[in-house]
This record gives sequence, C-alpha cells and structure tokens, in this order.
Amino acid sequence: MRLSKYYSFTLKENPSDAYLVSHKLMLRAGMIKQATSGIYTWLPLGLKVLNKIKDLIRIAHIKNDVYEILMPTIQPSDIWIKSGRYDDYGKEMLKISDRNDNELLYGPTNEEMITDLVSNDIKSYKDLPKLLFHVQWKFRDEIRPRFGVMRCREFLMKDAYSFDLDYENSYYSYCKMFILYMKIFKLLGLKIIPVKAASGPIGGALSHEFILETSSGETQIFYDKRVFDHDVSNVNLTNKTDAIVATENILSLYSRTSEKHDLSVFKNTVESQNQIISNGIEVGHIFYFGTKYSEAFNANYINNKGSKELIHSGSYGIGVSRLVAAIIEANNDDRGIKWPKKVTPYDIGLINVRSDNDTCNCFSENFYKKFSKKYEVIYDDRNVRVGDKFHNMDLLGIPLQIIVGEKNLLNSNIEIKERVTGKSELININKVESYLEYKCEF
Amino acid sequence: MRLSKYYSFTLKENPSDAYLVSHKLMLRAGMIKQATSGIYTWLPLGLKVLNKIKDLIRIAHIKNDVYEILMPTIQPSDIWIKSGRYDDYGKEMLKISDRNDNELLYGPTNEEMITDLVSNDIKSYKDLPKLLFHVQWKFRDEIRPRFGVMRCREFLMKDAYSFDLDYENSYYSYCKMFILYMKIFKLLGLKIIPVKAASGPIGGALSHEFILETSSGETQIFYDKRVFDHDVSNVNLTNKTDAIVATENILSLYSRTSEKHDLSVFKNTVESQNQIISNGIEVGHIFYFGTKYSEAFNANYINNKGSKELIHSGSYGIGVSRLVAAIIEANNDDRGIKWPKKVTPYDIGLINVRSDNDTCNCFSENFYKKFSKKYEVIYDDRNVRVGDKFHNMDLLGIPLQIIVGEKNLLNSNIEIKERVTGKSELININKVESYLEYKCEF
Repeated sequence: MRLSKYYSFTLKENPSDAYLVSHKLMLRAGMIKQATSGIYTWLPLGLKVLNKIKDLIRIAHIKNDVYEILMPTIQPSDIWIKSGRYDDYGKEMLKISDRNDNELLYGPTNEEMITDLVSNDIKSYKDLPKLLFHVQWKFRDEIRPRFGVMRCREFLMKDAYSFDLDYENSYYSYCKMFILYMKIFKLLGLKIIPVKAASGPIGGALSHEFILETSSGETQIFYDKRVFDHDVSNVNLTNKTDAIVATENILSLYSRTSEKHDLSVFKNTVESQNQIISNGIEVGHIFYFGTKYSEAFNANYINNKGSKELIHSGSYGIGVSRLVAAIIEANNDDRGIKWPKKVTPYDIGLINVRSDNDTCNCFSENFYKKFSKKYEVIYDDRNVRVGDKFHNMDLLGIPLQIIVGEKNLLNSNIEIKERVTGKSELININKVESYLEYKCEF
Repeated sequence: MRLSKYYSFTLKENPSDAYLVSHKLMLRAGMIKQATSGIYTWLPLGLKVLNKIKDLIRIAHIKNDVYEILMPTIQPSDIWIKSGRYDDYGKEMLKISDRNDNELLYGPTNEEMITDLVSNDIKSYKDLPKLLFHVQWKFRDEIRPRFGVMRCREFLMKDAYSFDLDYENSYYSYCKMFILYMKIFKLLGLKIIPVKAASGPIGGALSHEFILETSSGETQIFYDKRVFDHDVSNVNLTNKTDAIVATENILSLYSRTSEKHDLSVFKNTVESQNQIISNGIEVGHIFYFGTKYSEAFNANYINNKGSKELIHSGSYGIGVSRLVAAIIEANNDDRGIKWPKKVTPYDIGLINVRSDNDTCNCFSENFYKKFSKKYEVIYDDRNVRVGDKFHNMDLLGIPLQIIVGEKNLLNSNIEIKERVTGKSELININKVESYLEYKCEF
C-alpha cells in the first residue's frame, strides 16, 4: 500500500475528548471515526486489524467443529417476550417499530433467536451435539458511551452457542470452549486471566469472564498468580477428558471478579506472595445456562429410548471490536501503537528517507514491488519531511520499519528498526530477504 | 465437512410459501431460515456462499485501489436532514429513537455518512482521487418483503463511493467502476446486461443498472444483443483512456430499463434480429451525482491555485445477499442447485454408497482425509439410504460428486459425476488425483 494514495489521515495531537490511550491512538492513527455517540466508522487501517482478529477467531472455531452461521441484526420482539427477557436489558435494548407497527429490536445477544432456530431443526439425540457461532454487529444503548470502541453502542461480537443432550455433555462443551478461548487469546498474543463471574441477564449456573489485565480496566479482579502457569496449547479439544482436566486445573486456582470475590477464601487459600488484586478489561464471557432457553422454546429431542428431553445449552462471547482497543491498551508507548505480529495491519513499513533522490526512490520502488508479493507492506512514498515519516510509522505501530537512506545505500545497507524494541540494525541489501523471512515468521 | 456432524437440515418437499425457485431451493437446501418477515438467518451452507461472493467482490475492489472501510448500520438522522433526503425513502426507512430520544435510522445506503466523513479528511487536490467501499448490512422496510433474500428487508450490500476533482476525473472513476463490475460479474460466472437506468432517490445525471437476465426477474429490459460481444477481461483499469473507451463501446449499444426505454429509438437504431425484450434481476446499480452531496456537506478541497472547489462523487452498489439468490435463479434444474465453481460452498461431494461396508468406509475415509487438505470436501458419511444421499447432493448443488461403491472399488474404480451436465464416468483410483486437479482448476 502506497501511503500517497491510501485513505490514511493521522493526527499529530491527542484529541481532547479521548481519555483512554487506545481511544486516543485509534483516533490519531486514523483507524476509526465517530459517526455519532458510541457509533463508529472503521477506516482502512482499523478495519484491517478488526478483520484479522475476526478471521483468527472464526478459523479457530471452524477448525474445532463449531460451525459458522449469521443471524440478522434485527430481531422480532416476540421471541424475547417468550423467554421472559424483553425487559431484562432495560433501556439498553434498542427497540424499534416497523412500518406496520411490528415490534422489533436491534439484537444485544442471540440466545432466543438461535434456540428458536435449533428447536425447529433438532429432532433426535443423533442430531446432537451442535456448536454454532456467528460474528455479527450488536447494539446496546449504553447510557454513557465512552472510551471509543471499548464501550460503544454498535459493536462487533462473536457469540457461540452449544446444544447438548444433558448436563455432562454440556459441561464438556463448556470446557472445550473455555480452552478454545485460552488458545485464541494466546494466538492473539494476549495474557488473559479467566475469572469466575456473575452471569447477569444471560442467566445460568456457571460463568467465567476472560480479562485482559490493564490499569485502565473497569473490572477489578482478584487472582492467584499461578493461573498463568498453565499452557493450553497442547490440549486436544476433541478429547473430552483432556478438555475437562485442563479446564479444572485452571479453575482450581482462585480467580474472581469483585462480585464473586470472597476475601476470607482468598486469604486462606492463596499464599500471600501469589495474591494479585488488579484491574482489567473483559474481552470474553462464557455461560452454561442449562435448559433456561430450551424450556421457553420447546427445544427438545427424542432420546434413544423414544422419549422427549430438553436440550442443554451454553453461550460464549468474545468482544471482537473491543479486542482491537484492548490489544492497543496492552501494546503501546508514548510514540504510538506496537502491533503484535498476528494482528498488525501491515507487516512492514517502508520509509523512503529521500523521495527527491533517484537511488533511494529506485531501491524503495523495487523493494516495494518485490516484497509486496510476500508480505503486507505499507510504503511511505509521500513527499513530506522525513521526521514526519518516522513519527507516522511509529504511531501506526508497524512491527518492522525498513528505512532507506542514501548514505546507507552507498554502503549497500538499509536500516531495519523493530517497533517493539526500538532497536535498529544495518542490514546488507543482499541479506534483507532472509532477514525478513526470519523476522516475519509467525 | 462430515454431513453427520454438520448443521445441515434439508427439506424433501417444496415449502408452500415460496414462489421463486431460488427461494424454494435456499430453504430446501438449508441455506437460510426466516427469522421474521423479510429478515433471514444464514445457515452454514448459505453463509459459505455469501462469504465467497463477498470476498471475491472485496478482493476485486482492493486490487483496483478501492479501499475498504466499514460504516456502522445505525446512522444519525441529522445527516439525512442536511442532505434533504430524510423523507425521500418514505416508510422504507427504518427510523429509530434511542434512550435519549435522539433520532437514528438503520442505513438504507451511505452517501450522507461517507460524504460527511471525507469532508473532514480531504483538504487539498493532492488528497484526491479517493475510492472507498464497504460491505455492510442495510435495511429497507419493504411494504411486501418476498422472494426470500431477493427482496428482503435486512440485506447485505457492497457500496463504493468515488471522490474526484472534477467531472472529467469523476467520469473516469465511473467508467472504472463500470468495467470493474463487468469483470466481477464475469468472475462470478454471470451473464449480466448493463442498462441505462433512472437514478431514483440517489439522484444524479448518469446511472446504469446491471441486470441478470431471468424470466422471473421483476425488471423489464430492452437491449441490443450485441452488448454481449464485449470482453472486458483485458481492460486495464489504471489506464484512463482504456477504461473510458471500453465503457463507451458497451454504452454505444441500446440497452435500457422500461423507465428509460424509447420505442422509436429502439426500432430505428437496433436491427430487428438484435432487438431483445426480456426480464431480469437488478444485481448492481451505479450513479454519478456530481456535487449533490458535496454541497450539502461542504465537501471541498483547495485546488492547485489556492481556491476552494467542490468534490465530485458517484456511488456504486452490488446486492451481495441478493446475488446468492440470483446465481441460483440462473443455475438450477428440477433436482436442485448447480453451483458455479467460483461460489460453490464445497468443491467435492463425497458419497459413500455403502456405509455398512469396510472397503467403502476405508476408501471414503482416506479420500476425505487426503483431499480435504486441497479441496473443500463435503462427505456424506450418514447412515441413510443411498437414494437420499444422491438426492441430497444434487439438491446442495456441489459441482463434483465422488461416488464410492463396493463393485466399482473391486475394479479399482470410483464414479465421478458432474452436477452441471449430469454425466458420470468411472475413474481408476490411481488417476483420481490428476482428474480432480483438472476438473477443479479455476
């Protein structure tokens, strides 16, 4: 991508109305633009990151036999009346009347709609289990939208739903999704703390939140620091015992939100040097709610003895648009964003120091043409001051900066700077290809 | 994908409430399910097709320097009041009040929002041209939603917008998008007729629709059949003259909707053997509207002499969800869907004729494991009657059916049937790999 042609308008100053660092940086880097209170347009750079996160999450689900569907944003109110939740969301639910005065609403979540759907399709115990997910825009009419896409009104959520024969099978689905979430957050390069949580308006007996620890987070958490000792990357999710044992190992350690916190249990069961009290951002939330929605929608199946049974269910959400901001909260410095490799909008930022110099131009153009075939390269080919180019590339947070200057080129070198460490090295132009292969590998 | 585990529930009978063949087949194949009037859930098979079409369109735009953004579904009403269009959509616009009684609406299109956006970012003639697009759900509160996703209320649209210095440059953008659309429809395997059209509530001087000819279509068209003689695949869109000449070549032939039809011109300029009067489905619509929205939003730039000028704009829409139905209208028979290779949800349908036979099972399992790495394979491993498997695979419309039977296996053969022609051949199992390579290449 050539910056001279791209839709990229950055700000030098911090916007006065932004408080969170992620909000400031997303506005300054030209990733988002507010359309109206709590509602945002995603600009090219922001959308690239959002799509990368979305696709990483989608693929992780599909690989594990969670199938993708897409429910609409607009829902009929009758299914919410049926579940008894029509008033639970209060004024946060955006209610709508259509031209025929039918009551509709912009979905804040989809338990009703999906239970209604499967109740028509599932007939027999042979049709179970089923795990489904979708990634769709939701709307919650927050009283005070703030912090950019961290707490906005129209937001992108991945929500999955499990349908099982009974509690035992449903518990396996819950553990499978629990470990899948830990794997996804690890892939995203995030250190996430799973905590026991209240289930809120979704309801149900079993519920965990996934918290990204940052000082700016609104959720207070209390946990045993050994929770980080568990590596889930080798857990085989198709194996019931593996998934359950791995989950229970993690959950055996104290880790709770303030609603579930019990000071005496915390003090008595966690050694004092392991007690952590901290803040974070909720980026995922999972629920087992049993037959709560199946009852309302007659979602049942015929068991192997010929009699009817209610389906057991759970739901599993990740805040996809919020994750963009959360990742920035965890990866930034005073110069700008520092993208982890898996979600960076571009792998390489190419800076032509002297756009008035033929040697620099020619090398940069050739580099851009050659390496764009293999990597995502953003090329600052603009005719602006070199200081602006450096500041801009740091702000955008591209992991590797290739700096093409006349003097270095005369010695057959280019400078390569890593955004995360700030360190730069001179690399011989004949070794650039293998250097990039090494640095860009995932 | 193993059908035994997949979320795929097909219907043997035609649903009584569906009139169009695409609507019937989408319901029967388990691609969509109505959530409420004119609002649909996309099930796994349907969503795969929707995503393939969406991504093909997205990539074609991005490759041609049209950059992707994502505007929200919910818009503030004030920008519509500013453009003077707040009442133009009448009752088709879904108006909403939020908790603070702010007037919002579910976007039926995005000219206002994007002009408001660029009016803040574009300062100088150096910032132009810009072409942007997004693929987002829209809502139009149709008085009589019908024909499934062909005429529904919540639908997926790709809408692009061009921003240029003046009429001349804007005309180039218009021609570039015109030819890009012809290329996209060709990639999708569709024979599309571009016709001169009325511009409706979008406004503007220049407007063309892209029509897929089918007898069930609601749009009547009148055209010179030589319009199909133009091959656009080699037109270089970065070359202004090429794009304009190619467009004008096509537009020199008579081709109009009924609103723009002029019988005497038709009779006098088109030889009688070339006169076609026909029906079709609108799948794309493009508009040049000049400074209509720039004026309302003060979207201007400083020209190279230092004075202010208004930006010239156009918009370019493709009905992405409608295309799924349109493609089925053009590709089906009385047994079901016949997917073109580019948009098929799966490349290969594997039918194990004898799930009670070890040889057949073993071969099918190995085939599935081996070829799933290279192709998208849907494997009917269910324990149902073989007649049901054949009917089901024909209904789903998978281009190549691999039929594994005991007798053929004893002779080291499998049967391969092409869905489009209905022809089948026996292929030696040692030649299957090269046969598939030949048949599945695009």
